[in-house]
Amino acid sequence: MQAFLDRLRQTVGDSHLLIGGDLSAWEIDWRRRYHGRALAVVRPGNTEEVAAVVGACAAAGVAIVPQGGHTGLVGGGTPDASGHQLVLSLQRLNRVRRIDADNLTMTVDAGCVLQTAQQAALGAGLLLPLSLAAEGSCTVGGNLATNAGGTQVLRYGNARDLCLGLEVVTAQGEIWQGLSGLRKDNTGYDLKHLFIGSEGTLGVITGATMKLFPLPASTVTAWAETPSLQAAVRLLALAHRHLGATLTGFEVMGPTALDLVRRHMPQLSVPLTSPTAANANRIAVLIESADSGAESQARECMEALLEAALNEACLTDAALSDNLAQSQRMWHIRESIPLAQAREGLNIKHDISLPVSSIPAFCAETDALLAHAVPGARLVNFGHLGDGNLHYNVQAPVGTDAGDFLKRHENTVNALVYEAVARHGGSFSAEHGVGALKVAELTRYEPPVALRMMRAIKCALDPAGIMNPGRVLSEPPHP
Amino acid sequence: MQAFLDRLRQTVGDSHLLIGGDLSAWEIDWRRRYHGRALAVVRPGNTEEVAAVVGACAAAGVAIVPQGGHTGLVGGGTPDASGHQLVLSLQRLNRVRRIDADNLTMTVDAGCVLQTAQQAALGAGLLLPLSLAAEGSCTVGGNLATNAGGTQVLRYGNARDLCLGLEVVTAQGEIWQGLSGLRKDNTGYDLKHLFIGSEGTLGVITGATMKLFPLPASTVTAWAETPSLQAAVRLLALAHRHLGATLTGFEVMGPTALDLVRRHMPQLSVPLTSPTAANANRIAVLIESADSGAESQARECMEALLEAALNEACLTDAALSDNLAQSQRMWHIRESIPLAQAREGLNIKHDISLPVSSIPAFCAETDALLAHAVPGARLVNFGHLGDGNLHYNVQAPVGTDAGDFLKRHENTVNALVYEAVARHGGSFSAEHGVGALKVAELTRYEPPVALRMMRAIKCALDPAGIMNPGRVLSEPPHP
Repeated sequence: MQAFLDRLRQTVGDSHLLIGGDLSAWEIDWRRRYHGRALAVVRPGNTEEVAAVVGACAAAGVAIVPQGGHTGLVGGGTPDASGHQLVLSLQRLNRVRRIDADNLTMTVDAGCVLQTAQQAALGAGLLLPLSLAAEGSCTVGGNLATNAGGTQVLRYGNARDLCLGLEVVTAQGEIWQGLSGLRKDNTGYDLKHLFIGSEGTLGVITGATMKLFPLPASTVTAWAETPSLQAAVRLLALAHRHLGATLTGFEVMGPTALDLVRRHMPQLSVPLTSPTAANANRIAVLIESADSGAESQARECMEALLEAALNEACLTDAALSDNLAQSQRMWHIRESIPLAQAREGLNIKHDISLPVSSIPAFCAETDALLAHAVPGARLVNFGHLGDGNLHYNVQAPVGTDAGDFLKRHENTVNALVYEAVARHGGSFSAEHGVGALKVAELTRYEPPVALRMMRAIKCALDPAGIMNPGRVLSEPPHP
Repeated sequence: MQAFLDRLRQTVGDSHLLIGGDLSAWEIDWRRRYHGRALAVVRPGNTEEVAAVVGACAAAGVAIVPQGGHTGLVGGGTPDASGHQLVLSLQRLNRVRRIDADNLTMTVDAGCVLQTAQQAALGAGLLLPLSLAAEGSCTVGGNLATNAGGTQVLRYGNARDLCLGLEVVTAQGEIWQGLSGLRKDNTGYDLKHLFIGSEGTLGVITGATMKLFPLPASTVTAWAETPSLQAAVRLLALAHRHLGATLTGFEVMGPTALDLVRRHMPQLSVPLTSPTAANANRIAVLIESADSGAESQARECMEALLEAALNEACLTDAALSDNLAQSQRMWHIRESIPLAQAREGLNIKHDISLPVSSIPAFCAETDALLAHAVPGARLVNFGHLGDGNLHYNVQAPVGTDAGDFLKRHENTVNALVYEAVARHGGSFSAEHGVGALKVAELTRYEPPVALRMMRAIKCALDPAGIMNPGRVLSEPPHP
């Protein structure tokens, strides 16, 4: 082990191999659910050093936990408690390597912070549309390893859809130079898509070429009130028809979610009144369109949509933002829901996706099952309806102890929700991944044929099993 | 062998196992470059029968060549001459299973003809945007197995980007039920993307869920003349900025390409005059935008683009289509280039892609190298500039024997072009795939690390090596 650590030290230099001392920044995850203990933290400064580190680990049989901005929500980048896993931090690989404006691409190091990459694109007058709450800390490599989603998926796709090429260090410590600015390339198996979303279990992403887009010339935001989820789904179909490719956002917020914002952030002036028995099914919708044309044109299209929706009884009321500040206030309400939930107390979170058409039936059925199984529990339902992605969260009944509620009901609630998701053709992890948190769910809900293929692939690319073991796939795949 | 064939016959019925007789429809590829001999042709009627057939092949060690519409251009779906390979035709799996309008998805059998699927979508008022020359015969399964491109990639992506889920029969004869209408699903390795583009070498695609889109309300087409390829690239950047997500097509046509159309189809009235020394670098561009808004609005945006381009000297002349018939005439010229080339005689075809920004330098360099290596050879350069995809074809010198030209120069020309493509970071197969035709190129131009990973994956998912052997990867990967 000493020889191994010496080899790492020679590779990255004394100051970039951290052993002992306070390593909690690398050992405790963002949600503080995982408290690990690392063998050491190694911080290589370039791709060649990453390759040398992985090569040394392969030779010594040491497990590697690749780590980007360490903002993941499922424990995929935090070492376990054994003290045997090496944290490989990509944070020193933080350069924007190149922007190719004519090709609408940028190439960055994996450890480049997302916001840094966004700003570099903006500096070239272009848009990197990947955007999520953690963008000030998360890294592009982490975004790709977990196939991050975020707020602009409806228009631009997930992280996967924005990536044209990767540079990867394999589990054998070799460098695969797969960076590419090509939009069409049919030469063999698509290795890029295999590494994207594999959460560091097949190799280490060290660089990426991402798609860029022209900056929208005008953005229009609307806040609408619909009588039911079913009406919100009809409104979404109308929005697709009226706004076409300019539709960038379609968010829904249930009455309980908005009630929590109203209670904990009264200064935000939530447009809707508190839910009553008469309007308990009411859903607020935030619609955004971004266009290359003039703002007047974008407003006309949005107004035509709202009028059509009113005529078809898909909405009861709506308001258009008159300026950027109003638009930001609308988004601020939507984005404050998680914090309002946290202020209300601990809750049980689900990041699920469903076919859009199945969402009303899923919610009706699952709401009823939950009401029966856990009387008084409050459903805080909101999310990206345009992507079929709901944050279907469960809050303790009013006036009860939330910690106690979780202890007693978390497993029941999760099983109930995930079984219902499976019945409706959905996914138990829409955008957060599997990590360490949902390994059991993957084993339970993924078809056995698919699990066998995943294990065969893991075994083929990481035969020694050193890449982020215990994440994604349950048992060690090696007999 | 008799027992094996009996088992197949029991599975699919007498009339769907073809042995002997004229099997040329399954044995000779569309371009008539490959003349194979099949052990037999089996035509299962559903996914379970496909699984039973593959299971029987796995047990007997018989190689399978999956075949859709048999319109591939690289020999990936044609059996070899050995008489040992079983052709597995998917053409009886031809149902549109379901259209889910609210979820904007359709699920089809793999053997469903692309045009049938397009029309079913249209019947529901929606667009399946995959579109290519062979759409009347090719199948959706074949499109996915080869990751087909086509004419709307710029806006909607390749076949890969349009697919949300797959049903696959594995090399072991198991059914993987991976159909899904989800736009977000981060649960393990993305097997779907691994099968897409694997050209039948990992398993057999039997069904797919595809994305649908709202139908555009208005379409505007423009024909422009630019002084050079460099100017065409600048015009493309302007088009992105002015048209944003409404930009659906950006095609370029070199002077020699248009000259051939003028000579062989004089009735088409090609707008530009014959090339002269003074305008030899001139490039014609076809720009199309499709919008959800009113036609007047779409025309305004296109006019603003053309005016800006004129001011920036990116174009010398331009015309807007006034109606659908004019638009179709413009496209008809573009689409007639391959036929005009064929009428002129045999030629050497390349389906290459490059970063858009590298295309002017690539063409300048490669044109000069070709002029030096093969004096008098004519360069017929046209393609999807918006995707970085060129059909960079080489025609025999005027008045020479084309067959003789090919025999003498094809290998030299290919090597010269592909080496230049590699130097400029491009791909030797943008949309047609590898098949049997480009196996040597894959071995030569793919990094060894990537080839090793591809072989490991092939070995992991098809350990017996029965799935379309000899295609994509060169040597049998099994020691």
